[in-house]
Amino acid sequence: MRDATGGRAEANTLAFERLTKSEPTLVDIRLAGEVVPGFTPDTILTSGPPTPWRDYTGGQREGIIGGVLFEALARDRDEAIAKLDAGDVKVGACHDFGCVGSLAGIYTASMPVFVVENAAFGNIAYCNIYEGSNPRRLNYGVYDEGVRDRLLLVQNEIVPVIAEALRQTGTIPLKPIIKRALNMGDELHSRNTAASLLFMRELTPSLLALASEGSDRITRAVKVMTDDQYFFLRLSMAAAKATADAARGLETSSVVTAMAFNCQGFAIRVSGLGDTWFKGPHASVEAKLFEGHGEDEITWMGGESIITETIGLGGFAQASAPALQAYQGGSYATMIARNEELYEITVGENTDYLIPALGYRGSPTGIDMFKVLDSGVLPAMDVGIAGRDGGQIGAGVVRAPLACFELAAEAYRQRYS
Amino acid sequence: MRDATGGRAEANTLAFERLTKSEPTLVDIRLAGEVVPGFTPDTILTSGPPTPWRDYTGGQREGIIGGVLFEALARDRDEAIAKLDAGDVKVGACHDFGCVGSLAGIYTASMPVFVVENAAFGNIAYCNIYEGSNPRRLNYGVYDEGVRDRLLLVQNEIVPVIAEALRQTGTIPLKPIIKRALNMGDELHSRNTAASLLFMRELTPSLLALASEGSDRITRAVKVMTDDQYFFLRLSMAAAKATADAARGLETSSVVTAMAFNCQGFAIRVSGLGDTWFKGPHASVEAKLFEGHGEDEITWMGGESIITETIGLGGFAQASAPALQAYQGGSYATMIARNEELYEITVGENTDYLIPALGYRGSPTGIDMFKVLDSGVLPAMDVGIAGRDGGQIGAGVVRAPLACFELAAEAYRQRYS
Repeated sequence: MRDATGGRAEANTLAFERLTKSEPTLVDIRLAGEVVPGFTPDTILTSGPPTPWRDYTGGQREGIIGGVLFEALARDRDEAIAKLDAGDVKVGACHDFGCVGSLAGIYTASMPVFVVENAAFGNIAYCNIYEGSNPRRLNYGVYDEGVRDRLLLVQNEIVPVIAEALRQTGTIPLKPIIKRALNMGDELHSRNTAASLLFMRELTPSLLALASEGSDRITRAVKVMTDDQYFFLRLSMAAAKATADAARGLETSSVVTAMAFNCQGFAIRVSGLGDTWFKGPHASVEAKLFEGHGEDEITWMGGESIITETIGLGGFAQASAPALQAYQGGSYATMIARNEELYEITVGENTDYLIPALGYRGSPTGIDMFKVLDSGVLPAMDVGIAGRDGGQIGAGVVRAPLACFELAAEAYRQRYS
Repeated sequence: MRDATGGRAEANTLAFERLTKSEPTLVDIRLAGEVVPGFTPDTILTSGPPTPWRDYTGGQREGIIGGVLFEALARDRDEAIAKLDAGDVKVGACHDFGCVGSLAGIYTASMPVFVVENAAFGNIAYCNIYEGSNPRRLNYGVYDEGVRDRLLLVQNEIVPVIAEALRQTGTIPLKPIIKRALNMGDELHSRNTAASLLFMRELTPSLLALASEGSDRITRAVKVMTDDQYFFLRLSMAAAKATADAARGLETSSVVTAMAFNCQGFAIRVSGLGDTWFKGPHASVEAKLFEGHGEDEITWMGGESIITETIGLGGFAQASAPALQAYQGGSYATMIARNEELYEITVGENTDYLIPALGYRGSPTGIDMFKVLDSGVLPAMDVGIAGRDGGQIGAGVVRAPLACFELAAEAYRQRYS
């Protein structure tokens, strides 16, 4: 019989190396239906573990229906539901397609996606493009004319410019941008202000060259890229998935390689336990809500952006982003203490993602589910908060539920002892 | 007889209001000889209080000679010295001309300057343009072919593009950029990384429009604007001078409106004491030197960028820039403690310049010389460090010498009691 514990330490070291030696690189921007393996015209993806269509509720269900309508797979809501009921439109889980979903995480075939290759290990991840800062958006369970127009603007006017500039530029390594942004007040999940500007800077020579044929559309694209905190988040997510996936499937490793939630609850995947999702209840939340909204409105409609936390960003680098106090509440002292506590549950300190406010200590990286169970410290994540009636109503910090880790540990014992 | 103390509190409140209600706005980029009042073709400006030419020593003297040569007012070094000795070339003090000097602070007539107007109070300040990151530069007491080529590149190729884009853009308010940069890891003196990107973003639509006539020169200008930490510093300095000057000349105010040093020592100006400089010895320094340099090489050749500290930026907002640890040494805990201590010597908390790491507390603003004397806390400033043989050899934190404040207090008592 194999020495599981000895093997585990070694496997976790390997997982940590994969997480830290990954080199996520933006190589292309393409349509999901064209580049994502297995993505058919009648596929809609959404966040979280694979779940039967009938189990999706609330905003996540609305998001899926919105995706069907946006893709013109049905003429109206009733037809959309009928087609989903009949299985004529298939609902898939983002992670099963190499994608990673922001909040409800709706992907349709015509949506453009960032194609991020892990140059160190060869695997590829995808993430679709930020819809903009309007609280009402498809990923927050809303679909109406305004949402559709914005999605069309992004995919027909903004993304083609960025894609063209990217092709002229060549590939863009994302790790240097992320490293630098950590010095500039970003934690790459709920705050991507600096990273978005740094990304735009990489494209600037190509954007200027394109502008020789008329600058208005380029100006619009630059505005979208740099106007708010979030444009780079999708690149951060794709970079995180390309990184985390490199640590997948390492025999005996107890390192978490994905966390996600959907309307039903929270779930994790563990490196040594294949692609099984270990499901628990919803995460606990400390939120700061936008003016005019109340705690009772908080709802769950999915979220996979917490992939950033699995590689040592987001909540695991919160001390880098003191400005998040204004967005998600809490004091900076709390943020620093929370960030420091996470070293108790991780395999090591990131060798690239350094936190200036912690004396340039590497961010806590590689969540070991057994350390979570031993310490009782739960992974902390920076997230946007959705409201009952759709749309974003705030932002905050959530904690993964213990139950996922208990289930995973039980499966681990069964498999390896 | 007037109640000096009562009047002082009121005057200091007024000075604080001027400092915080100022609206520094970039309105133009022009040549110093063309726009700065009184700037003749044979004028060379340098940092610090007005000083007879023969008293300039070391790198500051070399910088002045370099300025004469750069302006082609002499064929060689000997002729330059002869003309300076004869008074055929005049050496002026930056502040006397509405300018503010970075380190040696050499201005010549052909150099372009940012023109920053205080939209709230109408006064104008000027600052010339960053030479680039090479440690060897005119402002660090070096003049050779490389330095000249770089100055010419900046003024003939880079600045015209920026000036053209600025004229298309209109005016650019600098306060919103500074406010945002404080959330992005800058303190606007030794770190201006985010501010430089944010400034470039303001110009981007115009830069793209200009690129329709060929993008290479635009790309070069963008590179200079965004490649390193310092491009925005000159805007930050001009904004600070435009702000601090609005608080000048308020009867009975004991608020410091300028600090500067030259090769002879450190000096301050106080609002209620006219334009007199109160001189002391050199500042004390805690520096981190570049590889291969030693403490014994540290030399003083001027510096007026510490104008940023008089308005609540730089050392007075150091907690916003944890990444400065890597550049100037020290721990983040030290930086925070130092920043907090400065509230003891200031009139109030800035209403715009907020420090996220201090729970969004406004930066300590308006140095009251009497509070300095009472508390013994000396103003802390973030500066670049020059070496004996010219060039930058490091960066660090300096403390103003007590003597300047004692002299100013004595003058204050003579004038107002």
